[in-house]
Amino acid sequence: MALIAPSRRLRRTPFSDGVEAAGVGGYTVYNHMLLPVFFESIEADYHHLKKHVQVWDVACERQVELRGPDATRLMQTLTPRDLRGMLPGQCLYVPIVDETGGMLNDPVAVKLSEDRYWISIADSDLLLWVKGIANAYRFEVLVDEPDISPLAIQGPKSDELAARVFGEDIRNLRFFRFGIFSFEGQDVVIARSGYSKQGGFEIYVEGSEWGMPIWNALFEAGKDLNVRAGCPNAAERIESGLLSYGNDMTRENTPHECGLGKFCNTQTAIGCIGRDALLRVAKDGPIRQIRPIEIKGRVPACDRAWPIMSKNQKIGQVTSSSWSPDFDCSVAIGMVRMTHWDPGTTLSIETPEGVVEGVVKDRFWHEN
Amino acid sequence: MALIAPSRRLRRTPFSDGVEAAGVGGYTVYNHMLLPVFFESIEADYHHLKKHVQVWDVACERQVELRGPDATRLMQTLTPRDLRGMLPGQCLYVPIVDETGGMLNDPVAVKLSEDRYWISIADSDLLLWVKGIANAYRFEVLVDEPDISPLAIQGPKSDELAARVFGEDIRNLRFFRFGIFSFEGQDVVIARSGYSKQGGFEIYVEGSEWGMPIWNALFEAGKDLNVRAGCPNAAERIESGLLSYGNDMTRENTPHECGLGKFCNTQTAIGCIGRDALLRVAKDGPIRQIRPIEIKGRVPACDRAWPIMSKNQKIGQVTSSSWSPDFDCSVAIGMVRMTHWDPGTTLSIETPEGVVEGVVKDRFWHEN
Repeated sequence: MALIAPSRRLRRTPFSDGVEAAGVGGYTVYNHMLLPVFFESIEADYHHLKKHVQVWDVACERQVELRGPDATRLMQTLTPRDLRGMLPGQCLYVPIVDETGGMLNDPVAVKLSEDRYWISIADSDLLLWVKGIANAYRFEVLVDEPDISPLAIQGPKSDELAARVFGEDIRNLRFFRFGIFSFEGQDVVIARSGYSKQGGFEIYVEGSEWGMPIWNALFEAGKDLNVRAGCPNAAERIESGLLSYGNDMTRENTPHECGLGKFCNTQTAIGCIGRDALLRVAKDGPIRQIRPIEIKGRVPACDRAWPIMSKNQKIGQVTSSSWSPDFDCSVAIGMVRMTHWDPGTTLSIETPEGVVEGVVKDRFWHEN
Repeated sequence: MALIAPSRRLRRTPFSDGVEAAGVGGYTVYNHMLLPVFFESIEADYHHLKKHVQVWDVACERQVELRGPDATRLMQTLTPRDLRGMLPGQCLYVPIVDETGGMLNDPVAVKLSEDRYWISIADSDLLLWVKGIANAYRFEVLVDEPDISPLAIQGPKSDELAARVFGEDIRNLRFFRFGIFSFEGQDVVIARSGYSKQGGFEIYVEGSEWGMPIWNALFEAGKDLNVRAGCPNAAERIESGLLSYGNDMTRENTPHECGLGKFCNTQTAIGCIGRDALLRVAKDGPIRQIRPIEIKGRVPACDRAWPIMSKNQKIGQVTSSSWSPDFDCSVAIGMVRMTHWDPGTTLSIETPEGVVEGVVKDRFWHEN
């Protein structure tokens, strides 16, 4: 691994001082912002995450705020998911597509009220797309990036830690719902969500000045819970089948190829820009799709798409991989043609260090 | 400096194999792509750049291609620079603004023909803005990111090296013009441009498979010129007053604040989205503006905006800085209120390692 060179362009977060004091080992860049990738090591972080509780600086999940009488109309323009039943207080995973049905982002939309949404985005400047659409359609809506920085609490002891800092009521919060809780007299939006399957919350910290006080309060309250600084963990997120925009899917892919067809209501999502383009794939299904792939032994970090070959034909590619300590194999995510996507199919994968064999799994490792 | 963690999301370039073989020391991320920041050291690279010739992997200058009958109309929608006089074969530096006049990018537009442009972008997903606008306005134009990766030749021996590989005619190319040259029978667009003031070219390598052949040909031909792998050099680019989007300017700033008013023809750039918002600042001038700032001694890397204070009031901020070996001081770029922007004004700058004194310069160190 090479060094990362600091500059203002790679934005620090309200929690960076805490992250550095906790001994961050490596960074990636996400939405022009620093995102830790490991502290002790991916493997040590992984075991800790599954047993205890971690606090994650995910400020890089920047928010796009929509506010105004056309906010709901604009939100529906962006996604093929039918939002008519979405209630204030609800979070929804919403694929965002362009006019060709290509994925532009896969954020979580947070509905604060009929005229106000936050879109908690993956790694692309979705703000520019939304602003362009809102402006050209002359929608009556303000679109901006507010000073909101998510901080996640993840791991099996998350409820206990969150309850100590934000009150017992937080235990009753349902999955993908948010509530307004109190921190030192300040209202804070907290959702039961997060980029792992170990349970937990995401705190939408409004106002950078509240970053370190909340960070410190969590560490103070969680001492006996063995709380540590953590971050999205490559091994755990692949086991969990949590896709990564830019890694596992790009503008090249439809939601259906990404296995996100269940989040598309193409028949009824009237107003969605990519709806026409998706009607056919929604009916016929895609010809390639995301699959979990198990590889025996260790493979290098997946820093580029690895071709999956069959008889000199490319029939797919692997886009994420990691060693899985618990499953004693390498876990991977790839896009595979329908001729080869059935569970149990053996795949020939070309890594930069040679060809390895993978097997298509019927489900991700943590799927119910 | 921490490590950078590899993933497909931080895209490799067609030249990455060459960059790694040349011993890259550090990376940044730019348009979701790896950009080297130094090889031997910023200081050693700097001296070499000013004396010899370097080959730079600037594939991260991704292209947004506009193609179709409305290409020129769309291009004018994006920028307050009047493009009516722009000729095919010409490159123009074009500030891109949103509806509030805020900078979204500061790319170079390359006009291939009346119905075809490349926009060679700085670090933001300008593609999403342009696609949003084109789509919502129903312009007849295709907007896409083609497989084009710029490779720069920079330094005083650039003409000699380029002539050896692409033919003697390249010496006659004027600044910010491009021509079509030949490499192994293949047409290649090459412009006299680049992100330094040491002279040179940018090769728009079309087709990733041509990346390493052109890279290797340049190193083969330049052995006796002491050619080396290089990259945009923090010290040289600040001395030269070359601004960096995301560092020195953001969506918060108008072009006029960035000293780019000379590239805005607000009265005549009819159709530009941000024109109305810029009319007043174009007439009255901005109340804060980019300035070169000289600081005695060494300061840390500018990884966040450093406040410039006067009597407990923030009157500006420093956004880029570097030690300058040739000028024996730290060179910096900042945004300063008009009350304090006159040359010779002493500024009190709050770095994370303490307060330092800076002086506003009348011009950048390499300005003519």
